[in-house]
Amino acid sequence: VAKKEGAAIVTRQAVDKILDAIAFDDAGLVPAIAQRHGTGEVLMLAWMNRDAVRATLESSDVTYWSRSRQKLWRKGESSGHTQRLIALRIDCDGDALLLEVEQAGPACHTNRANCFFRLATEDGLAMTSEPIED
Amino acid sequence: VAKKEGAAIVTRQAVDKILDAIAFDDAGLVPAIAQRHGTGEVLMLAWMNRDAVRATLESSDVTYWSRSRQKLWRKGESSGHTQRLIALRIDCDGDALLLEVEQAGPACHTNRANCFFRLATEDGLAMTSEPIED
Repeated sequence: VAKKEGAAIVTRQAVDKILDAIAFDDAGLVPAIAQRHGTGEVLMLAWMNRDAVRATLESSDVTYWSRSRQKLWRKGESSGHTQRLIALRIDCDGDALLLEVEQAGPACHTNRANCFFRLATEDGLAMTSEPIED
Repeated sequence: VAKKEGAAIVTRQAVDKILDAIAFDDAGLVPAIAQRHGTGEVLMLAWMNRDAVRATLESSDVTYWSRSRQKLWRKGESSGHTQRLIALRIDCDGDALLLEVEQAGPACHTNRANCFFRLATEDGLAMTSEPIED
């Protein structure tokens, strides 16, 4: 297997240091923002536990914790719409992550490019994008 | 008082429709990502309750719920580093908000431009920005 670009985090010691800097909440989770590499488009917000952060750093395949299914969820494992990690950043308080990713296909389960397609307007909410055709 | 650009949400009915689309968590909160208008820079992640969303939409002054102080927190109320709302978007599941803002000064309480200044590296964490001089 060729080393993937961006798969920079390899040692267990480095991952442990990074995990130590994250303030997981009472449920053991931290919110993670996925942002498209190169454009800055915010794609989605999901949640990670320690195992998800470790899997993401060790494989560069972005992996979340599914709160609905209560299991690790490698993004794209069923849809093919994977996220390859370019960079992971931790905020000042350690209670939020920012992931720079290369997104394959639409990020949203509605088949839209990103999840933030409902815009607040004077009339309530407006839909600002349509599902991408397969 | 001149009408501020971006202060488009004014009616109580519109705000009620928007609030109805948000899935607040068991603590009555929703995570809100603040992104700089024009550049796409992700500035910070904070939390909003219903009153914070309402205050933000009605005033265009971004207002969060401070979990540490357990009170509404108009961003910049003490620092002057305010956020003016340009657009508010709700994600597919209604459990995350994306705020497009005009940020006055540094967004981070450490006086950095944004809160995500700790980058995961092979050696652990690297600091990627310095506090802005006053």
